Amino acid sequence: MRNSTRSNVDPFIVMDVMEAARKAEEKGRHIIHMEVGQPATGAPERARRALADALDKGAMGYTVALGLPELRARIAQMYGEWYNVDLNPDRVVITPGSSGAFILSFTALFDSGDRVGIGAPGYPSYRQILSALGMQPVDIQTAPENRLQPVAADLVGQDLRGLLVASPANPTGTMLSKPALTELMGAAAEAGASFISDEIYHGIEYEAKAVTALEVSDDAYVINSFSKYFSMTGWRVGWMVVPEDHVRVVERIAQNMFICAPHASQVAALAAMDCEDELQDNLAVYAKNRQLMLDGLPQAGFDKIAPPDGAFYVYADVSDITQDSRALAAEILEKVGVAVTPGLDFDPVRGATTLRFSYARSTADIEEGLLRLKTFMEGRL
Amino acid sequence: MRNSTRSNVDPFIVMDVMEAARKAEEKGRHIIHMEVGQPATGAPERARRALADALDKGAMGYTVALGLPELRARIAQMYGEWYNVDLNPDRVVITPGSSGAFILSFTALFDSGDRVGIGAPGYPSYRQILSALGMQPVDIQTAPENRLQPVAADLVGQDLRGLLVASPANPTGTMLSKPALTELMGAAAEAGASFISDEIYHGIEYEAKAVTALEVSDDAYVINSFSKYFSMTGWRVGWMVVPEDHVRVVERIAQNMFICAPHASQVAALAAMDCEDELQDNLAVYAKNRQLMLDGLPQAGFDKIAPPDGAFYVYADVSDITQDSRALAAEILEKVGVAVTPGLDFDPVRGATTLRFSYARSTADIEEGLLRLKTFMEGRL
Repeated sequence: MRNSTRSNVDPFIVMDVMEAARKAEEKGRHIIHMEVGQPATGAPERARRALADALDKGAMGYTVALGLPELRARIAQMYGEWYNVDLNPDRVVITPGSSGAFILSFTALFDSGDRVGIGAPGYPSYRQILSALGMQPVDIQTAPENRLQPVAADLVGQDLRGLLVASPANPTGTMLSKPALTELMGAAAEAGASFISDEIYHGIEYEAKAVTALEVSDDAYVINSFSKYFSMTGWRVGWMVVPEDHVRVVERIAQNMFICAPHASQVAALAAMDCEDELQDNLAVYAKNRQLMLDGLPQAGFDKIAPPDGAFYVYADVSDITQDSRALAAEILEKVGVAVTPGLDFDPVRGATTLRFSYARSTADIEEGLLRLKTFMEGRL
Repeated sequence: MRNSTRSNVDPFIVMDVMEAARKAEEKGRHIIHMEVGQPATGAPERARRALADALDKGAMGYTVALGLPELRARIAQMYGEWYNVDLNPDRVVITPGSSGAFILSFTALFDSGDRVGIGAPGYPSYRQILSALGMQPVDIQTAPENRLQPVAADLVGQDLRGLLVASPANPTGTMLSKPALTELMGAAAEAGASFISDEIYHGIEYEAKAVTALEVSDDAYVINSFSKYFSMTGWRVGWMVVPEDHVRVVERIAQNMFICAPHASQVAALAAMDCEDELQDNLAVYAKNRQLMLDGLPQAGFDKIAPPDGAFYVYADVSDITQDSRALAAEILEKVGVAVTPGLDFDPVRGATTLRFSYARSTADIEEGLLRLKTFMEGRL
């Protein structure tokens, strides 16, 4: 049996770092993990309690494809609380993580060969999922002066069937302001490109509130998840808000491709939405870590950084230091035991001169990591 | 925004039945559910206990994409116990249900426009997932004399890039014997069609043991799930066994498309594999129900039935009674309050003259349902 052409997915460069870190730990070395993309915290306490209680109550068979009605209603309510957006719960689709939402949205909107714009740098799986579905990802090389986010001018002449943006973004943490988002959505609509807004890092924001695409227009697919702010990565539950006249189409695709999102995870997710105290405690740790990073990274010598408006990453331009971020990451791990992500996963073109630092772990780890990074950079002088 | 061509997925006809049944129940009517495709039982007791314990222990973040190593090893061990097949655990890929395994296998093996053979009647989502991925499902009209399973001769001139079979099958419950499977796999290999074996109903078999494709050849993708025998539908955890040289490709697709199967579900699934006593009790109920069906359906007048070797369905040819199975199903629900599935979901061509009866619910329900079906048919005389 031979594999398909579309199965030819790029490996994650960061996997090499993670494997090297794992081996170092096996040998007894203490590694600081700044390569990870997930919270160190688990699901909120009351979410776990809610599931434990439910385990004894029902069979937890399939839910309907669109998800538990109570969960869809609670999410719609959240749009009122967070954004003052009045959202019809019928438009909320529960998905197996944001991963499931990408598969669903791409399938609902695009056909084989369709060109879909994604920002570079950006989350690597956008590109890979589009390719795996037989579509054509189109990298938009974003500019530092645009906060490494796409702008209307980037769409000209691209013949895009879709545009996917993330705010706050991974790996940069930068956000689109409401005017920037409005302009971009207008340009996409004019160009005939369906707009998908990845809002997975909403809630993890520091100086200004993140803006949802739904504040601008209902003519968008909005994707979110319980993985980041709600600290439930391994549970694989997320959601998507779609235009009213797309609900039936998305429902049928979801029935066939997923049947439903995991029932137990939906039960836990519903309870997690009322754990604001614990989640705000998590956020306070990120905020403290972020400030340490904003002080410590430039002190260490990583001073060309994107404005980290949200999420838990700092993206640094290291072109003054190296033309090979992969080698630099390996060297940092080897010399001072800090695992970081080379930019190549996020931007195949310019990622050779960038690194992503995650500050999702404990504050003690961040402090120690920054000291080590300073030591490393001093050693290079 | 407009939807893609590939998003044009057929609705499930059975949904109309389920909605009508729900409305009848709202009005206080007592409905017997012979339309459902899932066990009435929940996850085994010790599986739920294992998860409850794990909830307090770790963060349950992402697992690696291929799944928890202990679970992969335990599944490999099961192939030794069930089939006397010596399986390398590295070949086992944990998936978000068999649904996830279909997406993964189709992506790994087929490109846009590729023709993939599926048996008709068959599980409706095969066709819909293939279409949603931009591939071309090719219905193979199976013959009663072949137990409604594809045979080698069916592949001639079809120019298939893949062949997907299920044994025991949904909706028929029929199985492929080892000689039949061997011949079919040989014919597929000769025709250049990759072979996918859906073994989701393995373990739910009555007179003979189901044969896994791995007993015949390693050159196949084998798909299974914790949803049926292990009674864990809503947990969305399944697995796939792939040839050794396909593991890396499948891993990369899984990393990007799913990240991982739900962690909590994997923990519960591992424990479920040691709940043989409870699972055998469930099986005893199915066996009793099946015998009731085999006696009661012909007595009621549904006597043209496929041999139900496994699963929990009986597929009946009702061409003597109607040319419109949808209307017949509606009439049965209306007159005697039994919900059954019209064959159209499984076979767009011949399904107008077939019905599927599920016996996955309690024995008391089956007894009552059969009485009502007899009453219904007597009323038609």
